[in-house]
Amino acid sequence: MLLGSALDPSEWHHLESAGLTERAVVSMLPGMATIPIARFDDLLSTRGRIGRGGPTAPTRPVENALYEFGGGFPDPASFPYDGIVEATARMIKAEGAEALTYGDHQGYRGLRELVCHKYALFERLEVTPDNLIISNGSGHALSLAFSAFLDVGDSMLSEAPTFSGTLNTLRRHGPQVLDVPIDAEGMVTDVAREQLEKLRREGRRCKLIYTIVNFQNPAGPTLSLRRRQELIGLAQEHDTLILEDDAYGELRFEGQPLPSLYALDPTRVIRAGTVSKILGAGFRLGWLCADPAMISVLQSFLFGGGVNPFASRVATYYLRDHLAPHVALLVDVYRAKRDAMLEGLWQVLGGTDVEISKPEGGFFIWIKLPTGTDPARLAEVAVQRRLQYTPGPAFFVNGGGHEFIRLAFSYEPPARCYDGARLIAQAILDSRR
Amino acid sequence: MLLGSALDPSEWHHLESAGLTERAVVSMLPGMATIPIARFDDLLSTRGRIGRGGPTAPTRPVENALYEFGGGFPDPASFPYDGIVEATARMIKAEGAEALTYGDHQGYRGLRELVCHKYALFERLEVTPDNLIISNGSGHALSLAFSAFLDVGDSMLSEAPTFSGTLNTLRRHGPQVLDVPIDAEGMVTDVAREQLEKLRREGRRCKLIYTIVNFQNPAGPTLSLRRRQELIGLAQEHDTLILEDDAYGELRFEGQPLPSLYALDPTRVIRAGTVSKILGAGFRLGWLCADPAMISVLQSFLFGGGVNPFASRVATYYLRDHLAPHVALLVDVYRAKRDAMLEGLWQVLGGTDVEISKPEGGFFIWIKLPTGTDPARLAEVAVQRRLQYTPGPAFFVNGGGHEFIRLAFSYEPPARCYDGARLIAQAILDSRR
Repeated sequence: MLLGSALDPSEWHHLESAGLTERAVVSMLPGMATIPIARFDDLLSTRGRIGRGGPTAPTRPVENALYEFGGGFPDPASFPYDGIVEATARMIKAEGAEALTYGDHQGYRGLRELVCHKYALFERLEVTPDNLIISNGSGHALSLAFSAFLDVGDSMLSEAPTFSGTLNTLRRHGPQVLDVPIDAEGMVTDVAREQLEKLRREGRRCKLIYTIVNFQNPAGPTLSLRRRQELIGLAQEHDTLILEDDAYGELRFEGQPLPSLYALDPTRVIRAGTVSKILGAGFRLGWLCADPAMISVLQSFLFGGGVNPFASRVATYYLRDHLAPHVALLVDVYRAKRDAMLEGLWQVLGGTDVEISKPEGGFFIWIKLPTGTDPARLAEVAVQRRLQYTPGPAFFVNGGGHEFIRLAFSYEPPARCYDGARLIAQAILDSRR
Repeated sequence: MLLGSALDPSEWHHLESAGLTERAVVSMLPGMATIPIARFDDLLSTRGRIGRGGPTAPTRPVENALYEFGGGFPDPASFPYDGIVEATARMIKAEGAEALTYGDHQGYRGLRELVCHKYALFERLEVTPDNLIISNGSGHALSLAFSAFLDVGDSMLSEAPTFSGTLNTLRRHGPQVLDVPIDAEGMVTDVAREQLEKLRREGRRCKLIYTIVNFQNPAGPTLSLRRRQELIGLAQEHDTLILEDDAYGELRFEGQPLPSLYALDPTRVIRAGTVSKILGAGFRLGWLCADPAMISVLQSFLFGGGVNPFASRVATYYLRDHLAPHVALLVDVYRAKRDAMLEGLWQVLGGTDVEISKPEGGFFIWIKLPTGTDPARLAEVAVQRRLQYTPGPAFFVNGGGHEFIRLAFSYEPPARCYDGARLIAQAILDSRR
C-alpha cells in the first residue's frame, strides 16, 4: 500500500535514468489511482496523488473494543488537571499578551530552555535553545525533517518494523524506504551497512536513516551503545543523516540511559522529542534538536506564525515546576501496567513458543504469535470478542509482519491491562490452525 | 528572490520539454545556492534547496521602532485574559481528558461547529463540520492547500500585491506565480483571464488562483460581487481551483458583507479562515472550508495527532459564549485606530498626490507614495527616526512595488496610530528627490 513497497531500488533508478518525471513514476505505481475519483484529482500535486484512491489499511480490527490497547495514548488518570488550570492562570498573568499573539518562529524560548533542562537532567546532554525548533508534536517534527531532505523517489533506511504513524507521514513524502531488521540490540547495523552499500553500488544516495532508539516502537529493544557507535560510523562513511526518534526515553522502568545518537555526533543527527508522553499529547508540542545551520532549513517548513504560543507556555509553566517528580510518577504508573499485561499474557501463553517483548520503558508490548496461529482467524475472533490490538503489518512499509501484533499498555489501569491481556492471549490460542 | 521571479512560463515549459528534472531546474535559477553552504546541503530536498543561500529581504527597515506598524498583530488590549483563564478551567472540568490527549485528525468537532455558527451568523452561509479541517493558523491552512495541489514549477495566479506571509509559504512549494493586479474592486479579472489564456496557449495548467477577498492585504479593496462572479466563471472555464483567503471578514467597519467565493461555488473553492484576528493569534487556530472529498486530501498533509486539542477547546469554550459581542467590540476598536491613522496621514500629506487606501475593515493601510518620493531615501530617514513600515516590494513575488508602503494600525492605541502616522507622513515628505 505504501509507496516504498511498490518498486525496488533498481527499478526506481532505471525509471529515472529513462528520464521519467516523479509524476510519471508515481502514476505507474500499483495501488495508485489511475482514473480521477473526484473532479479535482487531475489538479493534485505528486505528493497529493500518492495513494489517492488506493486501499487504506485498517490498523486495528475492532472499533468498539472492550479495552484500549491500540494507539500510544497516555494514561488520562495521570494528567495533572488542576496543575494545568493553575499554570494557565499564572502564565496569563505573567505573559498573557505574548501567549495570545504570534510567536517566535523557532518556538517559545521558555519551552526550548525547558527542553535543554530536560536533556541535562535525564541524559547529562548539553544543548542550547539555538539547537531546538518547536513543532506541533513530534510527528510534525519528523515531517519537517522529511520535507527538508526527501524528494519523491529518494532513498532512505528505516527499521522494519517501525512506528506506523511515521509511515503515514512518510507516505506523503514518497521516499523509497529500505528495511533494516531489529534484534535484541535494536537496529541490525550489519544489514544497514549492506543496504547502504547496495545503494552506493546503484549510484543512489541514502538521504537519511530513521531510527527509534529507546524502547523501540513497536518491537521494544533499545539500541545498544555498540550499535549506536556503529550506526554513527556508517552515517559518516556514507555521508548521510540520522533522524533519531525518541518519544519515550524518560519513561525508563529499569536500567540506565545510553548516550543519544545526537550526543555521539551532533552535526549529523537530528533528534525528535515530545511532551506528549510526559505531560499530555493534547498540547501538540514536539521538537527537533539539531545543528543550528540545519534548524534554519527545518524552520523554513514551519508555516504558521510560531508553534502554539498559548499551549507552549501552559506546558512550560507546568513542567518548570514539576518535571522530575511528574516523570518519576509516570515511570511507576507505566511500569505497573507493563508488568500487569506481561503477567496476563504469560499466564495464558506460557505453554507455547510465543515471543513477548519486555521493554525497559515506553508504552508497547510486541508479540510474535505462537507457531500455528492464523492471523486472519485471530482477527475474526478479536472482532467477535471485541478485543483490540494493532496487527503487525501496520508497522512494515514493505510488507510482512503478519506473525506479529502490538499491544499498548499505556491507557488502561493495571487490572484492566491484566484482564484484557488474558482475553487476547486466549483469543490467540483459539486462533490456531 | 522568490522562485516565481526567476523564469517566465515559456522558459519553464521549455525546460520541462527538454526533460530537465525539477531539481535541475531549481539549481539553474538565479539566487539559488550553487555551492553547499553547510555540509548537509547536498542532501536537501528540492524544496529544501529553494532559496537556500540566496539573499533574504528585510521586510521592515527598523528593528527598534517607536511604533509597531509592521505585522498584522491583534491589539493586546483586546485580548480577553480573564475570559481565557475562566474558559480553561471550565473546559478542563468538562473534557480535560480529551483536551490533553490526541485529537480528531480533522480537528476538534466543537471548534468546527463553532466555525459553522460563525459563518451562519456573519454571512448566512450554511456549512457542516464535514466541510472543515482545523489547522495551526491560516498560514498552515494555506500550506495544506499548496502541498495538495502544487508541485515545484506548477503555475498559479495571485494578486500582486498580496500577503507577504503567503509568499514565504509559497516559496517552499516552488510554484511559478503569475501576477494579477488589483484596483478599487479587487483582483482585476480581465487580467486574470489574460493570464489563464496565456497559460492555455502554452499548454500549461493553472493549478489554483489565490485571492484575499475582503479588505485585501495589503492593498485594502474588497472584491466586488461582479468580480466574484467573473472569477468563479473563469475558474470553471479553465477547470481550476480558487483558494480564498479571508482572515479579516468579520472585522468590517462599514458596508455589508458580500457572498464568499465559496458560497458561489462550494465545489471549486477552498476557503481559509482563522481565529487569530477575532480572538488571538497565539491559539494558532485556522481552518479550510471545502468539499468533503477535498478535505480528505488536505487532511493527509496534517502530520500531528490532531491540531491543538487543548488550545482548540479553550478558544471554543470562550467563543461559544462571546463571539458576537467580542467581534462587535473589536470592530469598534479597530475602526477607531484606522480613522486615527488616516487622520494623521492626511493632515500631513494632504497637499500631495499621495494615494491612501481606506479599507472597509481589517488591519492595514496601503500608501502609494507621492510623486517624487525616493524609497531608498525614505528607508534611510525611517531608520534615523526609528519609524517602521513594511516596504511595498515585500508583497510582490515578481518584483515591483517600490512606490508603495503598508502600515498596520491594529496594534497601537488610536492616539499612537495618529502620532506615528504623522511622523511617517513627515518622513515621506522629507524623502522627496
